[in-house]
Amino acid sequence: MTTKIDYKKELEAASRGMIMIHDPELLIKLIVRMIVGKVQIKHAGMIVYDADRDCFVLNISKGETGFKIPAGFARFDNNHPIIALFNKKEYRTLVLNRNAIVTQDINKLIWQESVMREGSGKKELLYKVADQMHMIGAVACVPAYYSDKLQAVLLLGARNDGDKFDQQELDFFAALASDAAMAIRNAQLFIEAKREAEKTRDLFFRTTLVLASAIEIKDKYTHGHTERVTNYAVMIAQRMVENGSANFDQKFLENVHISSLLHDIGKIGVPEVILNKPGQLTHEEFEIMKRHTTNGVEILKPLLELKDALDGVKSHHERYDGGGYPEGLKGEQIPMVAAIIAVADTYDAMITDRPYRKGMSKEEAVAEIKSNILKQFHYQPAQALIELYELGKV
Amino acid sequence: MTTKIDYKKELEAASRGMIMIHDPELLIKLIVRMIVGKVQIKHAGMIVYDADRDCFVLNISKGETGFKIPAGFARFDNNHPIIALFNKKEYRTLVLNRNAIVTQDINKLIWQESVMREGSGKKELLYKVADQMHMIGAVACVPAYYSDKLQAVLLLGARNDGDKFDQQELDFFAALASDAAMAIRNAQLFIEAKREAEKTRDLFFRTTLVLASAIEIKDKYTHGHTERVTNYAVMIAQRMVENGSANFDQKFLENVHISSLLHDIGKIGVPEVILNKPGQLTHEEFEIMKRHTTNGVEILKPLLELKDALDGVKSHHERYDGGGYPEGLKGEQIPMVAAIIAVADTYDAMITDRPYRKGMSKEEAVAEIKSNILKQFHYQPAQALIELYELGKV
Repeated sequence: MTTKIDYKKELEAASRGMIMIHDPELLIKLIVRMIVGKVQIKHAGMIVYDADRDCFVLNISKGETGFKIPAGFARFDNNHPIIALFNKKEYRTLVLNRNAIVTQDINKLIWQESVMREGSGKKELLYKVADQMHMIGAVACVPAYYSDKLQAVLLLGARNDGDKFDQQELDFFAALASDAAMAIRNAQLFIEAKREAEKTRDLFFRTTLVLASAIEIKDKYTHGHTERVTNYAVMIAQRMVENGSANFDQKFLENVHISSLLHDIGKIGVPEVILNKPGQLTHEEFEIMKRHTTNGVEILKPLLELKDALDGVKSHHERYDGGGYPEGLKGEQIPMVAAIIAVADTYDAMITDRPYRKGMSKEEAVAEIKSNILKQFHYQPAQALIELYELGKV
Repeated sequence: MTTKIDYKKELEAASRGMIMIHDPELLIKLIVRMIVGKVQIKHAGMIVYDADRDCFVLNISKGETGFKIPAGFARFDNNHPIIALFNKKEYRTLVLNRNAIVTQDINKLIWQESVMREGSGKKELLYKVADQMHMIGAVACVPAYYSDKLQAVLLLGARNDGDKFDQQELDFFAALASDAAMAIRNAQLFIEAKREAEKTRDLFFRTTLVLASAIEIKDKYTHGHTERVTNYAVMIAQRMVENGSANFDQKFLENVHISSLLHDIGKIGVPEVILNKPGQLTHEEFEIMKRHTTNGVEILKPLLELKDALDGVKSHHERYDGGGYPEGLKGEQIPMVAAIIAVADTYDAMITDRPYRKGMSKEEAVAEIKSNILKQFHYQPAQALIELYELGKV
């Protein structure tokens, strides 16, 4: 008998760690694997409530032979006999003092006077439960509740030594299943919180794209420019990491993304006549056009979280040789995010058709960028674009 | 002796629920209150690691008399004797087989050969620990580790019956403290995830405001208009809930917020000459101006999450009597979010100075809105604005 008790300490200790596992699938796998390993039973499984689908799902069955689950049994709806037995108030009294349903109890329960007398469907339900347990090869089913709602059912196959589970063990499994249900619920809440954050983040990026692209309505030459430049810039930054010329972290890559989205936002302050003038701008007009860099910074300044992105907004028209604007920065004075956007921006401008001229071929544009390395462009982002072109990615 | 064991079951059961409490402060309070209540000790407390400040903080001390914590003891830095004893590798061997430090052990430990011989500062540390425990009135300190890092220390005052804690009890408290440390860590991770989501949400709203307001650069009459209309609209919606004329949920209120931010975004497609024309627009010009409603819808259509906000963008120039645009909707055909923005938008337009005319007084504007109820405006949002004016809030 002592061997039967031995596993408890180990299982209890292991179940303590469950709280820190925030992946429900993994959690359920670990629990079932632990039980099969420690308790020496042929197999075990767990049915877990899936709130999205409002039904119970057999998440895993594990063991020497595995459950023989007939097709279509992976989902257990709320009327499935095993679920109904544990979930419906009128049936729950049947298992209340046992904390579980065990096959060898079912006949005894059926013949109990109360079940016989009431004619409340309890007898029929118990027959069906026995049937289902036989089909899935479980000798005991242990429910786990959280906030008085059934969260999971632990399915236990027969012991390897053929012994029955005693009440003390069933109570232990009930506690374990309840811990597991809570850990699973905790993990689900975590995933929901992360998913929520992810959705908001995604909405932030897409709304920024849509609003930044809205300025293109006024600028009839640049339809889709913001989106394309953003894609090129992010790809260039990633390529620089891949080819070993930079070791940007996630935060930097994200900043390249945001900064590219917003790089031309200051054009909203440039009069339409200048924005849409076909051909060369006069000196005066060009001076006004140039202000879109510093205008962009003014517009975005209230957003303190985006202060790193201002580098790209302000300096994406600087040149490596110092001949750019608005500040005439040189070489390494130019922030890398701006140097990356400069390459992406110029590449897109060169290969896009304008009403007054056809765009270059990609080949020509890449050659042009190559010949302007260390004149207009920094070496690494220009080189990364050339590689992306050679790989057929831009 | 049995009474000493009795509380364990209760504490174990209670500690099971800890995982679902995602408020670290509350969690620690509950644990300490539970221990004091069940174990019958004079007082208990918990020191918890604060990652932000890289020190340990006495989160709570609770009990009949309470700890007598001398001033300045609420923070325990990493060199505090009790923290160092549990945290530093060279000292941890001193408590390893005990899972705790207990006052009556300290002298024994000091005189142990190893401590005497080594001259490693262990003796001095133990004297200081004894001193500190005496000061804070703890007879036992139980460390809780997570991932081999000290997360918390449970402080236990003397038993009411004067008995000593036996090893079995100390082991139990160590397990309990470890559960608590994990639950606290879990709760902290939850709060971090929520905070992260909150920050992104906030950035989304503020970026949308900044980008939507950017169109005001072109429209010289409307500086700050978007922000003011958003504030009025959200206040009107909240007021309608307060005065019982509507029962909007959080989602609706959020939609009023987003929709107001974006209500004029379509103006980005209206030529500057029309936007900035002082005085009356010609019929043709007005037709173009009117398109800012449907333009706005076109711009925002790709953002499926914001589809409810399109109602306000499209229909904020509809009139209750059907004389508005773009669709000439009537009365209850007009979505409520649009009816709310209509009131907010008109109020702001009336009270704001334009280069060619001075704004009305608030009093006049409110009277104007009142006289246009069921002509231009819906009753409830107009009434809510009137109430807000009477309360001095707009």
